[in-house]
Amino acid sequence: MKVLSLATQRRTQWINITREVQAAVEALGLRDGSITVFVPHTTAGVTINEQADPDVAADLGAALARLVPEQDAYRHGEGNSDAHIKASLMGAAVPVLVRDGRLQLGTWQGIFFCEFDGPRAREIWVG
Amino acid sequence: MKVLSLATQRRTQWINITREVQAAVEALGLRDGSITVFVPHTTAGVTINEQADPDVAADLGAALARLVPEQDAYRHGEGNSDAHIKASLMGAAVPVLVRDGRLQLGTWQGIFFCEFDGPRAREIWVG
Amino acid sequence: MKVLSLATQRRTQWINITREVQAAVEALGLRDGSITVFVPHTTAGVTINEQADPDVAADLGAALARLVPEQDAYRHGEGNSDAHIKASLMGAAVPVLVRDGRLQLGTWQGIFFCEFDGPRAREIWVG
Repeated sequence: MKVLSLATQRRTQWINITREVQAAVEALGLRDGSITVFVPHTTAGVTINEQADPDVAADLGAALARLVPEQDAYRHGEGNSDAHIKASLMGAAVPVLVRDGRLQLGTWQGIFFCEFDGPRAREIWVG
Repeated sequence: MKVLSLATQRRTQWINITREVQAAVEALGLRDGSITVFVPHTTAGVTINEQADPDVAADLGAALARLVPEQDAYRHGEGNSDAHIKASLMGAAVPVLVRDGRLQLGTWQGIFFCEFDGPRAREIWVG
Repeated sequence: MKVLSLATQRRTQWINITREVQAAVEALGLRDGSITVFVPHTTAGVTINEQADPDVAADLGAALARLVPEQDAYRHGEGNSDAHIKASLMGAAVPVLVRDGRLQLGTWQGIFFCEFDGPRAREIWVG
């Protein structure tokens, strides 16, 4: 298992971690099979989506903000209930295929860390 | 593959199954790698989120109920269309890393079975 | 890794690919373990839900259309922002258990390719 660290700068932020996950696959020495990209946090998630146009991630963030408002009739007292809910909508983990030591992704795909309650020090586990 | 059984008590219920999944990993004898937690139902799902404060799961359930009302212009005639939709929003399966025989989860994370059409007898498959 | 190809016919379409994924498992020769069903596109996804009644997929499509309208205040200029968002809500990948060469699915479950920006030529990767 390889631990990646990152520091987020904003409350909501979509960070392309494709390059770092690829480096982790190489460090692990995995040639063929599949890896799991896992986010060990409850107010952040991971998703695979378009990396060519940053507007796609911006639209995704705005859509989630409309679906799950920051302020609502929440019971959890820390003011970040929306972040917990968005984390489960995106998911904490995604499996990705590996062939000849390379992540197998579609032409437009990138792997995104989804920060919903930053800024924070965060980790991503690859294994 | 290890089959876990549980009986849910309410229509919507979030059940922390972390301990049971850890026991399944031990029963399978898996030391290092990853396991899949799989829900073989179409009106229930699985998610990873905070287990310390039960209000987080309550907020998650309330948010899903607002997004996907129990009554709406549904075609499926069994009165549980919302449960099917919520199941796909949470997902039927999640991969989790295992190291030295232990599930690798973040400090606050637990694995939750998400019942959306209970009460029912349910299974979770770990493998 | 096995590549499945399909041609979608409509903008939004739910295609049951369970049989094709089972055939891929057989072609790969996998007997026991788990496989990843991976969609290498950013305006399509994959989900597991009921395959007995096609109304379930219809309800799922209608619910996603209500949650994520085709027209909204999107920044991405290609007119398919809703499709990118729906893709992340369903997810690009799902792990499925395999035993004795058979996909392990619940009685009512099928694996669905979710087209959100068709018609297009699409692929599904199984490995």
